[in-house]
Amino acid sequence: MTKVVLIGSGNVAQHLIKAFEEAKLQGTDVELVQVFSRNPANVTPIISWNLVTSDLNNLKEAHLYIICVSDDAIEAVSAELPFKNRLVVHTSGALPINSLHENNRKGVFYPLQSFTKNKPIVFKQIPICIESENPTDFYLLQKVGKALSDKVIAINTEQRKALHVAAVFANNFTNHLYGIASKICQENQVPFDILAPLIQETAEKIQTLSPNEAQTGPAKRNDQKTIKTHLDFLKEAHQKEIYQLLTQSIQENGKKL
Amino acid sequence: MTKVVLIGSGNVAQHLIKAFEEAKLQGTDVELVQVFSRNPANVTPIISWNLVTSDLNNLKEAHLYIICVSDDAIEAVSAELPFKNRLVVHTSGALPINSLHENNRKGVFYPLQSFTKNKPIVFKQIPICIESENPTDFYLLQKVGKALSDKVIAINTEQRKALHVAAVFANNFTNHLYGIASKICQENQVPFDILAPLIQETAEKIQTLSPNEAQTGPAKRNDQKTIKTHLDFLKEAHQKEIYQLLTQSIQENGKKL
Repeated sequence: MTKVVLIGSGNVAQHLIKAFEEAKLQGTDVELVQVFSRNPANVTPIISWNLVTSDLNNLKEAHLYIICVSDDAIEAVSAELPFKNRLVVHTSGALPINSLHENNRKGVFYPLQSFTKNKPIVFKQIPICIESENPTDFYLLQKVGKALSDKVIAINTEQRKALHVAAVFANNFTNHLYGIASKICQENQVPFDILAPLIQETAEKIQTLSPNEAQTGPAKRNDQKTIKTHLDFLKEAHQKEIYQLLTQSIQENGKKL
Repeated sequence: MTKVVLIGSGNVAQHLIKAFEEAKLQGTDVELVQVFSRNPANVTPIISWNLVTSDLNNLKEAHLYIICVSDDAIEAVSAELPFKNRLVVHTSGALPINSLHENNRKGVFYPLQSFTKNKPIVFKQIPICIESENPTDFYLLQKVGKALSDKVIAINTEQRKALHVAAVFANNFTNHLYGIASKICQENQVPFDILAPLIQETAEKIQTLSPNEAQTGPAKRNDQKTIKTHLDFLKEAHQKEIYQLLTQSIQENGKKL
């Protein structure tokens, strides 16, 4: 039985706890034996209270310690752990493996997804990006990853940095564009939800086409008349600037192909 | 029986033809009686050859003529029609109702979706935005729309303009951000497809949350350290500019809330 301790009780930690509970029900050989939380009330609704501790000195012995706290707390928490030479990983897409303290064997266990509080998610489909300092630890992370997800992939610190930047474009910035679209609709008495099937289809297309193949619209076909109409229509300076910059970027990209 | 003639044979026209064929199989009271195409070979794989004409003078009498050609050809095609005072609509999100010629009663029948050649789509879920000059024509467009889709909605020319701009943000620009993410992955030996579940979840979230509620990431939480790391990481000027502008826009937007 591979024993895991989870340190943290925020949004990602809660999704991980549920995924471990799910894996246990499936009869996997991986067990979440303890959760550390400074606010046990965060997690007692989803895991038995006797598995929760708020004292680092009470941490059980385990094969793997997953630090699942905010990026700026990872270093400090890893330094506070009252043991040495065990396998300790963080779950951050943004931080290098070396942000963990030297006291223990380091690794990363990064589930690549945008988690929303209280919104259930099919954890099995979430890619888990793993990294370790040695092959034995890699094997263990792979085993734990596979208990939770169908997609476990080796990603080193440099690759993860690229992936994290790419995720900002594909998730944070994309969502902001939805926000602008929503605002434009609202200001013109158009229900935003009629854009939902288009947004859905746009996301689905890239499962079968590359984004370059899927690109359409006035910028792509250099339809200057429509571009001008749209720029005249937009009143907010920020929206105009974004429209211009992205149009230009689509066109530059087209030239390179 | 409501008779419809479709003028055009491009990508959108082909999806519409399939949707009319589907509606016929469902036993609806709407029938596509003819398709006009300058290149009949475009459509004979999906509709019987004896329903296709390449001569505008051979157009059958019908309750509704749907002009489904590229935006810059709509005006000319509508002027060429050899009859008067019938109901003629276009399918463009970008053009006003008045881009159609005065000879006939005008209307718009705009299916709001990004159609890909040969990629099947559930037409029933596509919002159809309709506009007409008078209530009788509106009723007819509504009937035809409902034969094809579960979502038929009245959208006037001004609203449609807003919707079209919003769709550029939600579809064209979003897809371009996927393209940038894909390029960053490629350049760093990371398979782009591990971002697919994140992209899918981002699109799904706005079905239950507003884009403002769904916004996460370094810009939203004003994580200057990560923002700097990302900007240092990005090499291409365009990518850097887009990163900066969208980060700034997310932060401005946050201040307004």
